[in-house]
Amino acid sequence: MIIVLKPEATHDDAQAMLRVIEAQGLQPLYLPGVERIVLGALGDERVLRTLRLDGHPLVESVKPILTPYKRVSREMQRHDTQIDISSVTVGGRGFVVMAGPCAVENHGQVNATAAAVRESGARVLRGGAFKPRTSPYAFQGHGEDALKLLADAGRAHDMPIVTEVVDPADVELVAEHADALQVGARNMQNYRLLQAVGRASRPVLLKRGMSATIEELLLAAEYIMDAGNPNVILCERGIRTFETATRNTLDLNAVAVLKLRSHLPVVVDPSHGTGVRELVAPMAKAAIGAGADGLIIEVHCDPASALSDGAQSLDPDGFARLMREIAPFVEAAGRTFAA
Amino acid sequence: MIIVLKPEATHDDAQAMLRVIEAQGLQPLYLPGVERIVLGALGDERVLRTLRLDGHPLVESVKPILTPYKRVSREMQRHDTQIDISSVTVGGRGFVVMAGPCAVENHGQVNATAAAVRESGARVLRGGAFKPRTSPYAFQGHGEDALKLLADAGRAHDMPIVTEVVDPADVELVAEHADALQVGARNMQNYRLLQAVGRASRPVLLKRGMSATIEELLLAAEYIMDAGNPNVILCERGIRTFETATRNTLDLNAVAVLKLRSHLPVVVDPSHGTGVRELVAPMAKAAIGAGADGLIIEVHCDPASALSDGAQSLDPDGFARLMREIAPFVEAAGRTFAA
Amino acid sequence: MIIVLKPEATHDDAQAMLRVIEAQGLQPLYLPGVERIVLGALGDERVLRTLRLDGHPLVESVKPILTPYKRVSREMQRHDTQIDISSVTVGGRGFVVMAGPCAVENHGQVNATAAAVRESGARVLRGGAFKPRTSPYAFQGHGEDALKLLADAGRAHDMPIVTEVVDPADVELVAEHADALQVGARNMQNYRLLQAVGRASRPVLLKRGMSATIEELLLAAEYIMDAGNPNVILCERGIRTFETATRNTLDLNAVAVLKLRSHLPVVVDPSHGTGVRELVAPMAKAAIGAGADGLIIEVHCDPASALSDGAQSLDPDGFARLMREIAPFVEAAGRTFAA
Amino acid sequence: MIIVLKPEATHDDAQAMLRVIEAQGLQPLYLPGVERIVLGALGDERVLRTLRLDGHPLVESVKPILTPYKRVSREMQRHDTQIDISSVTVGGRGFVVMAGPCAVENHGQVNATAAAVRESGARVLRGGAFKPRTSPYAFQGHGEDALKLLADAGRAHDMPIVTEVVDPADVELVAEHADALQVGARNMQNYRLLQAVGRASRPVLLKRGMSATIEELLLAAEYIMDAGNPNVILCERGIRTFETATRNTLDLNAVAVLKLRSHLPVVVDPSHGTGVRELVAPMAKAAIGAGADGLIIEVHCDPASALSDGAQSLDPDGFARLMREIAPFVEAAGRTFAA
Repeated sequence: MIIVLKPEATHDDAQAMLRVIEAQGLQPLYLPGVERIVLGALGDERVLRTLRLDGHPLVESVKPILTPYKRVSREMQRHDTQIDISSVTVGGRGFVVMAGPCAVENHGQVNATAAAVRESGARVLRGGAFKPRTSPYAFQGHGEDALKLLADAGRAHDMPIVTEVVDPADVELVAEHADALQVGARNMQNYRLLQAVGRASRPVLLKRGMSATIEELLLAAEYIMDAGNPNVILCERGIRTFETATRNTLDLNAVAVLKLRSHLPVVVDPSHGTGVRELVAPMAKAAIGAGADGLIIEVHCDPASALSDGAQSLDPDGFARLMREIAPFVEAAGRTFAA
Repeated sequence: MIIVLKPEATHDDAQAMLRVIEAQGLQPLYLPGVERIVLGALGDERVLRTLRLDGHPLVESVKPILTPYKRVSREMQRHDTQIDISSVTVGGRGFVVMAGPCAVENHGQVNATAAAVRESGARVLRGGAFKPRTSPYAFQGHGEDALKLLADAGRAHDMPIVTEVVDPADVELVAEHADALQVGARNMQNYRLLQAVGRASRPVLLKRGMSATIEELLLAAEYIMDAGNPNVILCERGIRTFETATRNTLDLNAVAVLKLRSHLPVVVDPSHGTGVRELVAPMAKAAIGAGADGLIIEVHCDPASALSDGAQSLDPDGFARLMREIAPFVEAAGRTFAA
Repeated sequence: MIIVLKPEATHDDAQAMLRVIEAQGLQPLYLPGVERIVLGALGDERVLRTLRLDGHPLVESVKPILTPYKRVSREMQRHDTQIDISSVTVGGRGFVVMAGPCAVENHGQVNATAAAVRESGARVLRGGAFKPRTSPYAFQGHGEDALKLLADAGRAHDMPIVTEVVDPADVELVAEHADALQVGARNMQNYRLLQAVGRASRPVLLKRGMSATIEELLLAAEYIMDAGNPNVILCERGIRTFETATRNTLDLNAVAVLKLRSHLPVVVDPSHGTGVRELVAPMAKAAIGAGADGLIIEVHCDPASALSDGAQSLDPDGFARLMREIAPFVEAAGRTFAA
Repeated sequence: MIIVLKPEATHDDAQAMLRVIEAQGLQPLYLPGVERIVLGALGDERVLRTLRLDGHPLVESVKPILTPYKRVSREMQRHDTQIDISSVTVGGRGFVVMAGPCAVENHGQVNATAAAVRESGARVLRGGAFKPRTSPYAFQGHGEDALKLLADAGRAHDMPIVTEVVDPADVELVAEHADALQVGARNMQNYRLLQAVGRASRPVLLKRGMSATIEELLLAAEYIMDAGNPNVILCERGIRTFETATRNTLDLNAVAVLKLRSHLPVVVDPSHGTGVRELVAPMAKAAIGAGADGLIIEVHCDPASALSDGAQSLDPDGFARLMREIAPFVEAAGRTFAA
């Protein structure tokens, strides 16, 4: 950690601080400059942070040198982590497509969708039972009933399932039915929930918060790993920017950065990431180019009713077309669709 | 709701949609234009949203006319809501300053801070017992013990207390000790928590999420009100932008917008909002100019240890100076400090 | 255009406005609703905007229906525009890679770089003669001398050249030497410059401003086309967001959106777009997936000096590797490298 | 400057870099750590930046210690700079309100507006002759004729005038008529224009670009000062964020930060900063609280025509009310309206 002192700090002020640094078992460094005194403190930056030197009245700024995360870091583990969602491996050579309805509505709908996406090549079934919604007046999901319907559909069509959990108190229930637990973007910094899924025995699909930095996403993953669960799949799903042509700005740079910094697998959600149906296919192809290990795609909830369809959902035909369109890109990336 | 159709939509397509709109008990409108057909649907936009017309393949865009919130809206209630945190009224003529330590550490620290802020004019004591932290390695708060220490300090110094709750399962416990419940920025869209505090009998201080729009903040308040708790105090605490000179960009426009659109009281947190001690006083004055009903200020946790102080906390002297500096602005706003 | 009136507007107020709308030769519509009166005005929205109805005291909001641009729109021209930079066609089946040094420094540097990038498959040579720099103390480019060196290097290595112009007064001079004119991100809304390049006889490479919306980029292109120059190549080069892990957030959604809305070719600059050398290759591949017609890559200015290299520049070996890595993605996109 | 090396950098690599640093006349520092080698280089950071160490393949990150600007810095000059726009001083005890029409349309309009704003207490007349507009189809201003009309109105009503210049070639012409030159937000990084106004003999009102950081604004001011013109007034006018309730997010934190870091005067434009008429007064009061030295307010162009009014312009009555409303805040700030 580098500590830049204010111009008014004296040599004696600096020595006093260095003694505090040394008392923590850290290596102190004194760098007197022309316009400023700069101090260094080498060692475990997690200890350093507890000193909260940034609050000292004579400190102008503090610049960390090391990343604040550890377990998720590629420096800790050079090779890629592979995570099994039941029989499907994410993060290996196989490229994994997860697909399914936004919300599980009824037996017919979820099974028809499951059959269609399996047929086209999806290997994991996604679907919402507990839905976090911006408005209290919007549909909040069918809860446990939906969970069971989804699990049945997964079994019937030979796909493990992933579904969102929104309350620490529900983790056990959801883990009983689901093969993987999703933490949604709005809950990425709900630390109680992170700790709860960290104690669960299921892999976690952790979505990036819409204003979370890449470092914060990695720290959220660190929470889960620190609580005992090493099986975290990171998911880029769009960040909030000034641009309004897309609902979110799918940040594919994050995919490339995450693959550099972390050994964890990364999947991309171009449906929520753009919010526009016509953009799902080009951004899916782009995600593969950026190095994603898989995709999670919303396939529309109820193909029978022409009017009840989200602006970003594909219908089964659209999904089949998507799978055909991305195939050459999966190959260009040196991968094959997960078996 | 205005529905703009794609250029390829025909008269017949439009008529089919109008029949669906009419079947919902809404008033349909047909507006054939030169380059596009435009439809209107008048009535309860909450019903309209369930049609999810934005997902229809022939729909180019959908433009809502009414706001999606209702109970929080100034259209529902013209006069300002006043909310009592125990004996202290927020949202009336009295300007309320809440102050206290970032985290409750021990009996001495919280009482010394409480005595100092009360002496300078604070009327509500704030302090963290359950701390949401970006890193799993950072101090997470002393939990229930801290809660009791804070409640004791509040009683000893005649101030009601406000403290954060981070888990729906803790709401009952926290409500037992605290006079008001804080929902933090990271949990603004933790809907289970919103519903839980909505069932509590304590007022709620709802902080804006760091990437939440003003409309989303109002919808989060609507969740709480819809669950049965009408006593919501809104809090602006900075949003995330590209600017890095301040930790967050305190958005005082939001204060003025919230006062226009909603009848709920609005307080401002310039400590977290800027993250820089020197900016707390100017932004506190600015908040008063923008129309805030109160402030929430971090006064540092442990004045004894020169090195354990957050970059944004004031010490008791700094807080006393702040109170003197803002006094003429409180008066300029036609208000007095809350008794 | 849809005009939503405030709740206090009366039937008579609405009729008065409708008469103004009709007087402009537009088709007026009256839509009385339960909570609001809504007006419609159909016809040329460019005329409507001159009424500035958004400023009327009884108007709550105004929602345009049509896009404000015309010439750049795919509605005006369904097929893709192909633009010739001298002998190289951008926007056709051929995928075009432009490469070269950040700044032209001397004869040896620019020729060595030109030879290397041509050898690896670049077909257009880029290089800076006039450099816009954030700090007045940074190197500002060698101006006309650099321009001539670049043109000579282009001729020697059989590549047309593209270079930035920063002042309307320089357009003629730069057009004399360069095959295409670049308008940089900081000048995207320098309308005098847009008009000046709009009067030039060279194609224009228009970079998106770092906080420009996609609509604003299209309007900037409209300025150039409106001034008489139909040959505009759009360039995505990263926008400014809260994320600091990358210098900018390369917005590949914009590529897909631009290809939907406009007939103009789109190229991507992953060097400036990310600011990180290791991210250039993955984001180049991603750009191809998103539908880009070409890339513009910074290949470092002076390979001889190990210390004078931008954080985002590739060296000739790195560029050769990039070209090999992207080749399968170019093929997956159904394209070939431009001959 | 602190240079953090990658884990693979050796002791010898570090020594080689230190020799390069020393060769530039800078003081080198060697800080070997447990996980990383860190280097220091003390001295003129402007020299250091020319080394472009951030591009070195063994460098992980570079952290500057000093600010990149010099002349604008409060470290260079502790006391506030006062700037005279003709007879009106900005930056002293007097609080200066500048007001006038968005665009100068004709003799009657500009004189009526000038008379009204002068009567209510404005001391500088603003108005647009050359208008930068996002769309090529929008009104671009009346140019030189408007300039003369504005100058006449200023003389007639005893107010110096400030108006925007958009092209380096126009600076001389505008400086002939205007008492101060405005550089607009879209041109804040048009360096040719900055240099041109830097050579002019008029004070410059420099508006912050809508995605410019505070540091970039200060560097733009540094350009002007470095070109020879010390009279720069900084203007906060809103930045671009995800929030859409206001046209821009007026960033009053910037005012407080600028007053800390720079000796230059700062004024605030709440009209463009919010884009909403009802927000002009609260944000004007807030600006005073944040420490602004003045305001620039749009007073509507043509009060006669109820339909040709911008959403953010005040009419003369609204402006008079604003002046009455802000008066107690000006006093609370220990200032008086400029005489």
